[in-house]
Amino acid sequence: MKKLINDKKNVVEEMIDGYVKAHPEYIKRLEENDRALVSAKPKEEGKVAILIGGGSGHEPAFMGYVGDGMADGVAVGNIFASPPPAPILEVTKAIDKGAGVVYLYGNYAGDVMNFGMAAEMAEMEDIEVEMVLASDDVASAPKEEKDKRRGIAGEFFVYKMAGAAADLGYKLKEVADIARKTNDNTRSMGVGLTPCSLPQTGEPSFEIGDDEMEIGLGHHGEPGIRKATLDTADKVTDQLLQPIFEDMEINEGDEVAVLVNGLGSTPRMELYIMFRRVEQVLSEKGIKIYRSYVGDYITSLEMGGASITLTKLDDETKKLVDHPVNTPMFVQK
Amino acid sequence: MKKLINDKKNVVEEMIDGYVKAHPEYIKRLEENDRALVSAKPKEEGKVAILIGGGSGHEPAFMGYVGDGMADGVAVGNIFASPPPAPILEVTKAIDKGAGVVYLYGNYAGDVMNFGMAAEMAEMEDIEVEMVLASDDVASAPKEEKDKRRGIAGEFFVYKMAGAAADLGYKLKEVADIARKTNDNTRSMGVGLTPCSLPQTGEPSFEIGDDEMEIGLGHHGEPGIRKATLDTADKVTDQLLQPIFEDMEINEGDEVAVLVNGLGSTPRMELYIMFRRVEQVLSEKGIKIYRSYVGDYITSLEMGGASITLTKLDDETKKLVDHPVNTPMFVQK
Repeated sequence: MKKLINDKKNVVEEMIDGYVKAHPEYIKRLEENDRALVSAKPKEEGKVAILIGGGSGHEPAFMGYVGDGMADGVAVGNIFASPPPAPILEVTKAIDKGAGVVYLYGNYAGDVMNFGMAAEMAEMEDIEVEMVLASDDVASAPKEEKDKRRGIAGEFFVYKMAGAAADLGYKLKEVADIARKTNDNTRSMGVGLTPCSLPQTGEPSFEIGDDEMEIGLGHHGEPGIRKATLDTADKVTDQLLQPIFEDMEINEGDEVAVLVNGLGSTPRMELYIMFRRVEQVLSEKGIKIYRSYVGDYITSLEMGGASITLTKLDDETKKLVDHPVNTPMFVQK
Repeated sequence: MKKLINDKKNVVEEMIDGYVKAHPEYIKRLEENDRALVSAKPKEEGKVAILIGGGSGHEPAFMGYVGDGMADGVAVGNIFASPPPAPILEVTKAIDKGAGVVYLYGNYAGDVMNFGMAAEMAEMEDIEVEMVLASDDVASAPKEEKDKRRGIAGEFFVYKMAGAAADLGYKLKEVADIARKTNDNTRSMGVGLTPCSLPQTGEPSFEIGDDEMEIGLGHHGEPGIRKATLDTADKVTDQLLQPIFEDMEINEGDEVAVLVNGLGSTPRMELYIMFRRVEQVLSEKGIKIYRSYVGDYITSLEMGGASITLTKLDDETKKLVDHPVNTPMFVQK
């Protein structure tokens, strides 16, 4: 696949260079580690800090979500690879304001290992850490084993709610509980149409036929539930919603936030056509949409496809989802 | 190309359906015409209104830019086709608050005809209209014939500045003058790597080799200046900047806003790598970047490639570029 890059070994470094030069009023790189970025506007002393991170190639995730009302810092990995413990630890030390740090990341083996090691090192430096793993991808493990599921686009809501809670002065355990509650109430299902390719290899991330889609595809090209013939947007949307409804406690009168997320190369036009069907189905079920997000929130380079995420809200999380955010890639008034 | 759509004849209607259902607090459809959308929060009486529009497939342009601080209404055309006069006129009547309406659109034959006809009809209904055509694409005509050039991503700055001016209470002629000044001070150059395809035909919008790029490609696949072998991001960026500098009065000490715009399927990673080079080159020339925008601002469905836009600022346009915006697809605090 064609790419606008220089040396393929330097893509992450050069992306970060460009990012901090484009948005110096928002973000800065720590001198201690060039994969460690923190908000240019430090939080007040005594407030809980939020640390996010993961592999590159998912932009705006993860570095795009550092800013007011979301995360305080991010550890940046190589493409589709977990950051090592060092940048996680450096970010932790830089953003802790004496109230502890919540690590939010997706449930992937590398991330679990590296964030876990960084948390141990942070605790040796007397920084309290809570860890919350996102596991919203219905396709990746059965209902009884939700904690084995991968984190995909639903991570956005975990950051959103926890970031708001921290900003509002919740304590460490309370922020972590909000993140866990949000993850418990969030379900996602994705569909892949066309692969991306890693700059390092140039190889497609998965194989798929010209008239096929893969239901349940993961964000790094992990196999989904099944391959099927590509269908209309409405029928594909129904196929994504059905396993979510089967998995989730959700009933008439409930309120949700919806995220229709593009994986990279899917036009907004198609995402809004999918949203149209989501709204029809939820409306038929008497479920109220409290807030909608439609766009590229967690991508996989130039992968084609989309995911649908529902997060069930209560009075507390409605307030948190409404909380303002100001980052270089996501602003909400 | 694979698309998540239903009946190809209904893509624009269904996109608009999804859009107004996703963001009812921002946008509504006029009963008089289903391609006529206006802000859900009408402007105060006596303020100048801004009308934008053009073909679909360029999302977030154009409907994504209706909201506080930018446009008051939008006329939505078919894919890559101008809206007819009827929705333009209906939007005009709905948004006029007695102070006149400024039409902002790109310099394309269909748009020129249809917006011109709508303006005549509006004036028959005693609504004053000013029209400003964006013509920022350096590749599309020689320097001596700037008014023959196409409008591409630089249109974003024309909306941004004029929308701010209208919000701040500038009069009709003053808002139009701001839009004209912005267009005069704005230059863009694009590069195409991979085509998009229209849902109606499924055909690629242009032909290009596996190792080729097209410098100066238009937003609808219009031919550029030349085809060349795809090069590094830095060298491609230099090839886009050079004709901009040759065309523009810009010197050491000047200040600019920069837009590195993705055409649809180009990852943010690549756009930030390009921005990195833009910043290096401007810094070497002693030109100061006052504000940066990096992302998908005016797209061409799933086209691969990017464009670079520079707009030269003065004290007035610095204030206008900083003015807050709140639309469903673009928020600036």
